[in-house]
Amino acid sequence: MQRIPHSEMVDVFRRVLERHGVAPDRAQAIALIYTDNTCDGVPSHGLYRMADTIADIEGGSIDPAADAECVASFGSLEQWAGRKGPGVLTATTAMARAVEMARQSTMGCVALRNANHWMRAATYGLQAAAAGCLAMSWSNTIPLMPPHGSAEKRVGNNPLCIAVPGKEGETVLLDMALSQFSGGRTDVLRRTGGSFPVPGGYDEDGNLTTDPGAVRRSGRPLPIGHWKGSGLALCLDLLATLLSGGLATCQIPREGANLGVGCVQIFIAFDLATLGEGDDHEEIMATILDDLTTATPLEGERVTYPGQRSAETRRQNLAEGIPVDAELWQGALALAG
Amino acid sequence: MQRIPHSEMVDVFRRVLERHGVAPDRAQAIALIYTDNTCDGVPSHGLYRMADTIADIEGGSIDPAADAECVASFGSLEQWAGRKGPGVLTATTAMARAVEMARQSTMGCVALRNANHWMRAATYGLQAAAAGCLAMSWSNTIPLMPPHGSAEKRVGNNPLCIAVPGKEGETVLLDMALSQFSGGRTDVLRRTGGSFPVPGGYDEDGNLTTDPGAVRRSGRPLPIGHWKGSGLALCLDLLATLLSGGLATCQIPREGANLGVGCVQIFIAFDLATLGEGDDHEEIMATILDDLTTATPLEGERVTYPGQRSAETRRQNLAEGIPVDAELWQGALALAG
Repeated sequence: MQRIPHSEMVDVFRRVLERHGVAPDRAQAIALIYTDNTCDGVPSHGLYRMADTIADIEGGSIDPAADAECVASFGSLEQWAGRKGPGVLTATTAMARAVEMARQSTMGCVALRNANHWMRAATYGLQAAAAGCLAMSWSNTIPLMPPHGSAEKRVGNNPLCIAVPGKEGETVLLDMALSQFSGGRTDVLRRTGGSFPVPGGYDEDGNLTTDPGAVRRSGRPLPIGHWKGSGLALCLDLLATLLSGGLATCQIPREGANLGVGCVQIFIAFDLATLGEGDDHEEIMATILDDLTTATPLEGERVTYPGQRSAETRRQNLAEGIPVDAELWQGALALAG
Repeated sequence: MQRIPHSEMVDVFRRVLERHGVAPDRAQAIALIYTDNTCDGVPSHGLYRMADTIADIEGGSIDPAADAECVASFGSLEQWAGRKGPGVLTATTAMARAVEMARQSTMGCVALRNANHWMRAATYGLQAAAAGCLAMSWSNTIPLMPPHGSAEKRVGNNPLCIAVPGKEGETVLLDMALSQFSGGRTDVLRRTGGSFPVPGGYDEDGNLTTDPGAVRRSGRPLPIGHWKGSGLALCLDLLATLLSGGLATCQIPREGANLGVGCVQIFIAFDLATLGEGDDHEEIMATILDDLTTATPLEGERVTYPGQRSAETRRQNLAEGIPVDAELWQGALALAG
């Protein structure tokens, strides 16, 4: 497995972006997020997406120069518009503003509409945690999942992120699609010839399957908890749409120059310092995490908290280099010219 | 199946409560919530719990005269204490305050600690929706579920509720435990001899099973989406504990006069009127719900939105009387004297 140093990956991605019309400082910021995602073990939202991002810039659905802007302010909630800007930048701006609002009144919410794909929800959870905030964040998506009881895709697999800041390297970080496996994870497994560890959807005959290819062919990923994940996906879409004034899953353009532009994203931050938790919260967290991680593991298993494994992956890849799919890395180098 | 008129059930429950030292107005309020839960098809959090509630009053873990009170105010978030008051009353007070706060600044949050069991999360979602608010609410519980990778109960099955007000009878209302089936649903199925429609946990040999009795014996209900529900349960516990300053799942007393007292509950309301959505939101909701419910159903299935079936059950039971387990109903009548 080829491994690329973090700094080299940032540099290559930056060059790819600059070569396709992105201003240097913005190219650097985007490249860093795509590299961090790859470094954390989520290449589906990093290296795997670089070529698509360039295609979206060339096709006009991403305007690399556009910034998010505040369009309406309602006390502890603000509505912002993404204006077709790069999804990772507009989401970063939105979470930064939610954190500022939380500094003022403990809890702040930014509801962002007309946004592009933010890649990995965890990015903004980590951003809030680094600022000492708890965060809840979610996005809607185009219809990627059939609701419970149907085989027709009508709901998003709307990723949900919760972040709780802890001591160095111990941030609890949940980032989950509401399908049992995200589209990105499904594609990585297809590419590497792997299987799902538990059923990830239905095959074309309507039977549960662990074959990622069969789920892609049927278009029937399984919502987590069957009707529960299906219902949660609908509710997150309703909340995000009504709070942002933007487009619901069923309204996001699925073709043309606005392909996929218009998803809505919610960023809620709670400031622990304003709440007076001070350093106490680390002790409370340690109690909770110790109780969890001392549960006797089943044979061959580990009991971990959300974010623990991706933090381990990050540390390893920072030390040893980030493993890459050779063909996709060559593709990135070619795009960098 | 014996059916009891709604008004008769309220009256019997009220008499049970008054006979055990609950003041008349409070007995009426509690009786109404337990009846509504039973009427909506959730007897596990109504008729099934009346005898336990009386035992908790007699055992001292519920103080029927205690009210929730605000202990600290932090801008858009307030911390309240439940003070061993009846869980359904302290939760009602907390959601009412979150709605008031949302009227002021669009979004309000009450974090309630030292609370008793609120029975059914949906109660407070419906309360917020009736006031024109979107709501998100969740509670922690005692350890009821093993985290992914273990067979030892260490996490709660922390119920999560989301409510979106719609036209009469069309409130979208998600209320879900993070185990595939709640403890209440499991007990109702055991009592009626039913099976889970999908695997609800592991049997004592570690195999997935649809037998509710086997899951009770093993103590291994399945988190929704395996590691995803397990991780979400941990995160909701962390958020609720840190925001309320109360007890985490691993800290709630599991014996004595404080048995189960101390769970923490979060109530977040978003006021649609303050947000200027006016009547528009009903049109947006109709678009989203129409798209969902017109998905072609699989054979023998229906595609419904969360809350649709419980609203249908409510309408039927209001018209025809609320079906009851005869033995439990006789028990309630005996308690009423």
